Amino acid sequence: MSRRTIRLRLDGAAAADRSYAIVIGRGVIDALGSSCGGAAARRAVVVADAAVAPTHAARAVASLTGAGIETTLLVVPAGEASKSATHATRLWSDFARLAVDRHTHVVAVGGGVVGDLTGFVAATFARGLPLWQVPTTLVAQVDSAIGGKTGINLEAGKNLVGAFWQPRGVFADIDTLATLPDREFTSGLAEVLKYGVILDAEFFAWLEEHAAAVRRREPAALEHIVERSAALKAHVVERDEHETTGLRAILNYGHTFAHAFETAAGYGTLLHGEAVAIGMAAAARLAAALGRVEPDFVARQDSLLRALGLPVTAAHLSWTPPAADDLLAIMGRDKKTLNGQLRFVLPTRIGHVELVDGIDAALVRRVLES
Amino acid sequence: MSRRTIRLRLDGAAAADRSYAIVIGRGVIDALGSSCGGAAARRAVVVADAAVAPTHAARAVASLTGAGIETTLLVVPAGEASKSATHATRLWSDFARLAVDRHTHVVAVGGGVVGDLTGFVAATFARGLPLWQVPTTLVAQVDSAIGGKTGINLEAGKNLVGAFWQPRGVFADIDTLATLPDREFTSGLAEVLKYGVILDAEFFAWLEEHAAAVRRREPAALEHIVERSAALKAHVVERDEHETTGLRAILNYGHTFAHAFETAAGYGTLLHGEAVAIGMAAAARLAAALGRVEPDFVARQDSLLRALGLPVTAAHLSWTPPAADDLLAIMGRDKKTLNGQLRFVLPTRIGHVELVDGIDAALVRRVLES
Repeated sequence: MSRRTIRLRLDGAAAADRSYAIVIGRGVIDALGSSCGGAAARRAVVVADAAVAPTHAARAVASLTGAGIETTLLVVPAGEASKSATHATRLWSDFARLAVDRHTHVVAVGGGVVGDLTGFVAATFARGLPLWQVPTTLVAQVDSAIGGKTGINLEAGKNLVGAFWQPRGVFADIDTLATLPDREFTSGLAEVLKYGVILDAEFFAWLEEHAAAVRRREPAALEHIVERSAALKAHVVERDEHETTGLRAILNYGHTFAHAFETAAGYGTLLHGEAVAIGMAAAARLAAALGRVEPDFVARQDSLLRALGLPVTAAHLSWTPPAADDLLAIMGRDKKTLNGQLRFVLPTRIGHVELVDGIDAALVRRVLES
Repeated sequence: MSRRTIRLRLDGAAAADRSYAIVIGRGVIDALGSSCGGAAARRAVVVADAAVAPTHAARAVASLTGAGIETTLLVVPAGEASKSATHATRLWSDFARLAVDRHTHVVAVGGGVVGDLTGFVAATFARGLPLWQVPTTLVAQVDSAIGGKTGINLEAGKNLVGAFWQPRGVFADIDTLATLPDREFTSGLAEVLKYGVILDAEFFAWLEEHAAAVRRREPAALEHIVERSAALKAHVVERDEHETTGLRAILNYGHTFAHAFETAAGYGTLLHGEAVAIGMAAAARLAAALGRVEPDFVARQDSLLRALGLPVTAAHLSWTPPAADDLLAIMGRDKKTLNGQLRFVLPTRIGHVELVDGIDAALVRRVLES
């Protein structure tokens, strides 16, 4: 069992240390029990979706039980519909029935849906329970399981309800990526590439060189991309935990476009990473139109998107986007707009982006139409 | 308009100052608009229960609107049933419909139910909105509106779901106490007396001297008891915001008994303050049985309870409590028990209490039977 550990350092009110480890490697799920046991857990509740309950979640339960921790497994249906007030209420009731208290540790095993839902329930039951994230999809390992954002969807929109609630630790088991459907695995690579563009030119170059190994899911390549991505995410979260300084906003590179694409397509048509991929392609073109990047920036990013199997335009997804004006109207409602002005995260070069306010809607329309 | 201000000082992660003012006096609701305006609010949502919507909430709305803040009033039904997941979900949906964002300020006007529910919704919508508490009952002014505990009930129990979420400010308008039903006002005095017992012998003596003025609701007396209680609550919250050091637990004096009485009676039979009053009477007797207080402690506390119009035994409430063993069984399930051991906050003298573990159940039974 190989293993790499990243430490996410956070201070807290009254000098409480809220730092935690992100453990990455093959078979690290089996180390869960000793870590929770080391944190003095005696009881645990594992929440998993139905897709991973018999496999990854069963291994988590075995590890916890093996460490002498009395463990209960709760299963939620697979899919985005579980990230709802209805399922949060159901889990709250389950926790009450199990007499869960502040000494019970909560373990989320699965993708972003389970991590966000379980995190929210852990944040709010008894005003907060110790939480461990065990992400089993690529996008969860490199993004959603790290940094303490938890939440549920309302009918009116995604992630409208939630809390900042940091886990005690994250266990990213590389072995769980072997069985992911290809479309889902590839979609997760969009967030990986994003880290290269926004923060790390060297990592971007590494991805250019090793794209084939990544797509073959070679364990060493997977360990490297998960570790590098997790380290970059941790770096940002350490400096702007609650999204107040603007730094954390750079993680939204490509996302203003992506959310408009997802909303227009209806959730479920595009995978999130696919929307982010064409969103980054659009953001690069917007930056080029503003003269903010050298012309070869767009071509270089497009090449890596393609090399990783990601789409560059909607046409690659056999999806016909709506008129540019409809997409602009959706962007105007995005919670990342400030007082109605369009705001984008735009690159200046590979490895660096900036938050740019007051973007002319006509220019965005031209990019969308091209 | 007279006014006294207490500052509750809290540090925060990344040096964010989370301190806030508790403003107490006649007519202070009318100062709400200038305070929120000074905090750069441009939009506000006021949440109130149906009982205070036409009166106190209307004044809050007028004050906000007068300060140029675009304000919407949302009304929830009066009564404990509103503190539910159903009503939280309804408010989340209302907030989404109103396009509430992180720059919208939320104002809770009412008693503990509205404050707790609205605080929880403000804590979780868009992962946290600026919140102002405008408590209009005595118990909310001296206790629940201060200190950041928010929450909702589940069918399985009260306050099982919630979050710590500090307000930006608290406005305790003494004038709102004039119209409270007598039973509700008197019930709130139990928490006032509690502060004297747990922290402030001088305040206890002041209450003994001015009990009649308090019961007549003389404004000067009301200002004094709200200010003194709020200052003592602030003192405790500043030192143990998240109930981790044990200090905040002293606020639960009388409450382990009280919760058992409330559960046994069925919620709604006893007012919370009534249960706390007979809970403190029982806790005093338990302390006396353990030789922890001088014998006159019980008599002195009983006298002040009676002088304030509060019950000392269940008989005063025309309520027949169940057998002591049933009450003990309920206490064993209380979230304030630790690993099944009985734990009580017990006085040593007027003005000082301690958290005592490992209390013999037989002794508690004898106190309950007497």
